[in-house]
Amino acid sequence: MTGNTIQLDKNGNLKHFLTTEGLSQSLLQKILDHAESFASVGERAVKKVPLLRGKTIANLFFEPSTRTRTTFELAAKRLSADILNLNIATSATSKGETLSDTLHTLEAMHCDMFVVRHANSGAAHYIATQVAPHISVINAGDGRHAHPTQAMLDMFTIRRHKPDFSKLRVAIVGDILHSRVARSEIHALNTLGVLETRIIAPHTLIPKDVENLGVQVYHDMDQGLDGVDVVMMLRLQKERMTGALLPSEYEYFQRYGLTSKRLEKANPDAIVMHPGPINRGVEIDSDVADGERSVILQQVSHGIAVRMAVMAMTMGRNPENAGATE
Amino acid sequence: MTGNTIQLDKNGNLKHFLTTEGLSQSLLQKILDHAESFASVGERAVKKVPLLRGKTIANLFFEPSTRTRTTFELAAKRLSADILNLNIATSATSKGETLSDTLHTLEAMHCDMFVVRHANSGAAHYIATQVAPHISVINAGDGRHAHPTQAMLDMFTIRRHKPDFSKLRVAIVGDILHSRVARSEIHALNTLGVLETRIIAPHTLIPKDVENLGVQVYHDMDQGLDGVDVVMMLRLQKERMTGALLPSEYEYFQRYGLTSKRLEKANPDAIVMHPGPINRGVEIDSDVADGERSVILQQVSHGIAVRMAVMAMTMGRNPENAGATE
Amino acid sequence: MTGNTIQLDKNGNLKHFLTTEGLSQSLLQKILDHAESFASVGERAVKKVPLLRGKTIANLFFEPSTRTRTTFELAAKRLSADILNLNIATSATSKGETLSDTLHTLEAMHCDMFVVRHANSGAAHYIATQVAPHISVINAGDGRHAHPTQAMLDMFTIRRHKPDFSKLRVAIVGDILHSRVARSEIHALNTLGVLETRIIAPHTLIPKDVENLGVQVYHDMDQGLDGVDVVMMLRLQKERMTGALLPSEYEYFQRYGLTSKRLEKANPDAIVMHPGPINRGVEIDSDVADGERSVILQQVSHGIAVRMAVMAMTMGRNPENAGATE
Repeated sequence: MTGNTIQLDKNGNLKHFLTTEGLSQSLLQKILDHAESFASVGERAVKKVPLLRGKTIANLFFEPSTRTRTTFELAAKRLSADILNLNIATSATSKGETLSDTLHTLEAMHCDMFVVRHANSGAAHYIATQVAPHISVINAGDGRHAHPTQAMLDMFTIRRHKPDFSKLRVAIVGDILHSRVARSEIHALNTLGVLETRIIAPHTLIPKDVENLGVQVYHDMDQGLDGVDVVMMLRLQKERMTGALLPSEYEYFQRYGLTSKRLEKANPDAIVMHPGPINRGVEIDSDVADGERSVILQQVSHGIAVRMAVMAMTMGRNPENAGATE
Repeated sequence: MTGNTIQLDKNGNLKHFLTTEGLSQSLLQKILDHAESFASVGERAVKKVPLLRGKTIANLFFEPSTRTRTTFELAAKRLSADILNLNIATSATSKGETLSDTLHTLEAMHCDMFVVRHANSGAAHYIATQVAPHISVINAGDGRHAHPTQAMLDMFTIRRHKPDFSKLRVAIVGDILHSRVARSEIHALNTLGVLETRIIAPHTLIPKDVENLGVQVYHDMDQGLDGVDVVMMLRLQKERMTGALLPSEYEYFQRYGLTSKRLEKANPDAIVMHPGPINRGVEIDSDVADGERSVILQQVSHGIAVRMAVMAMTMGRNPENAGATE
Repeated sequence: MTGNTIQLDKNGNLKHFLTTEGLSQSLLQKILDHAESFASVGERAVKKVPLLRGKTIANLFFEPSTRTRTTFELAAKRLSADILNLNIATSATSKGETLSDTLHTLEAMHCDMFVVRHANSGAAHYIATQVAPHISVINAGDGRHAHPTQAMLDMFTIRRHKPDFSKLRVAIVGDILHSRVARSEIHALNTLGVLETRIIAPHTLIPKDVENLGVQVYHDMDQGLDGVDVVMMLRLQKERMTGALLPSEYEYFQRYGLTSKRLEKANPDAIVMHPGPINRGVEIDSDVADGERSVILQQVSHGIAVRMAVMAMTMGRNPENAGATE
């Protein structure tokens, strides 16, 4: 698997975190276990552990993102690392510097980790092949390819509510075609051994290679939600509406919006997830987003714990000594 | 009083700091007393105390401001808190996320405090009603309504020079109508029991509800400055000039600009204040701004001490143990 | 010398760092010695020393720069200082505040150091004359005048490879006329007593006062590189191409671009330097930039060590106790 050869060091430990694809079930479980150790840090009076003290982490955002950048920044600060926020779109590369030169320059500044978001699929993977051996790369979203920390915070949230993945039916609803989140979720769910992963979307928003993904495809939402334990909604990018892919916001909501009524098709204890930010009334009704089965805000909290776990693991640090407050 | 019910916890301690209106004299004095303890921190070799170590403070600036944001950032850092600068105007809300969802997302990231600046009057108050119980909200300026930390740093500066408020005549000069600073100052001065608060402005820049503010209104500057102990100048927003409210910068300065000659009307030991940034030659002459009676730069220094005090108090921390350097 | 009177305190210690001009050889060597102590910090597991803990450093960038700002930010963080990034171009001064008022406001916030970049020659020097006695100013590049930390990181890099300056022939190649880097390098090289400093450039890119600089001027690159030990390339600002100063990128590269073949004129162990970001194929060939004689990335690493040294020295701190990790 591509995922293993570059993501793991020779001892099988996580070196980079680029995709959930190809990682073993035991490694994914280990990430979740470590995140469990970090989850309590956010609830302490002093939300800080000294695990990455004196490390330098660079947020390399080639594509703007406040929310994801902020969670990585907080994760880094709570691990006591120094963090640099670099908005690459507006900086050195605009002076004609190559990506490779920008990376090697940051390496020479003794950065230890690059958190990368980029509009091109494969960008984080490419960067991981370019950097010096001591540097770890974490993919914070690359094109339509992968968003592995989002997928793992989703897995963490599922496991907290439904610890036995082998019994779960999970439905992912929305624009699967353009969604790096969906791809990373599907790989993680399959590796963690869920009973069934379903995708629910119009024909125009299903990727061509869907048969390789190990999922059941539904175009009718009522059928797709029938008997599921987890409903994972995707954010609808409004720009899809202007193309030929979707008729209108109204019609989309009629067919694929999650309402309380529609949620009745799912199991009575099904949880509802969304990576945020949510478009109320487009892909999800406010009743459901704010309802008792919604775990959307828990996902946000878990996002910091999962990112702390991945950052610490790729730096070779275990959370065992994270219990001690700095 | 509206101010009390939301700003204080059930033990009467400061929970949010949204307005000076409705707070008791003893509470305002307590803020000033705590600020006194923090004022020395800025003069130490190591300008840092560990009071808010491991706390996460988010600067939520819906309206841009370098100066005020910077003082809150420094106050947070000198209290050893982690600080996030979020320029909301250009981030998630532009993706269609509601304000409420943005706030709950930041809560889920385990933020402890929101420092809010917003162009709409009442925004900070609204946010304080929305957040989880453990979060404190500090108003860093909302529309024309309030700017309570500015008012308290002004009170701190006055008290350092003239400790007995009951003997003071204070004049506030300029665009009272649009000034959140003036409103917060007036409430604080009245609560602290000054002898007299005067406002000096053209008819067009006096608010309609002026009779409820407990101030004496002057349109003539020489009369208004006569015998005062404190002259608080306001910044003139240049955009007022383009409307019908003011004739011209030149004419404004002729009638309401503070010159050395005009300052002679005030008491010989009167101090001159300005929230900054100053428009030299518009509302204040350089002679006066840089003169020996100007305490304008002291206001800046005190701003950090007062903000440290308010941040610590709303988090339930006293400056008593702030003496120990981190 | 202008350089001495303002840059040194009455005991001859570095107070500001504005230019390499006029500083003594022993002081320049001291900067290099201290940088040597800090160089190892970047290679430790915990890249942090507590030398400037509790100090507040403001990055005042009137001209945008990601790379230089980032290295100062990292240097400050690794010295445990608090750092403020102020993009002055878009902030208070745009509200009509004078530069002097901006500076005094930051002083009043108890900043300890200003790192200044400005498009006008002399800006950092002017600021150093304006600030309070306890504040140090470091020039991070002013117009065409000086970029002393860049020059010193270059000297540091040379000394690591060729410790005896008195035996060195050094060539600086490119747009000398507009280059603050070249000016600061020339002063440093001459003070450190190199055997010969050469500049290689077309007539249009040589400054008028070149005879005062103590350099040999070459217009032919092969002649200029003959027998040198160090080749310092300058970045070509592409905007020069559009004016009358240079014919075309292609022609420039033909005459002044550094290729492997051309490098053969230099001594066999000559090193190749560039302040970055590099324009591959404009002033330097990729073969050379990435070749074994290139020390370009070492320059970046050394830049942080040199900036830590200068920041610590101007604050009166020696790196002797920097060995202890925070």
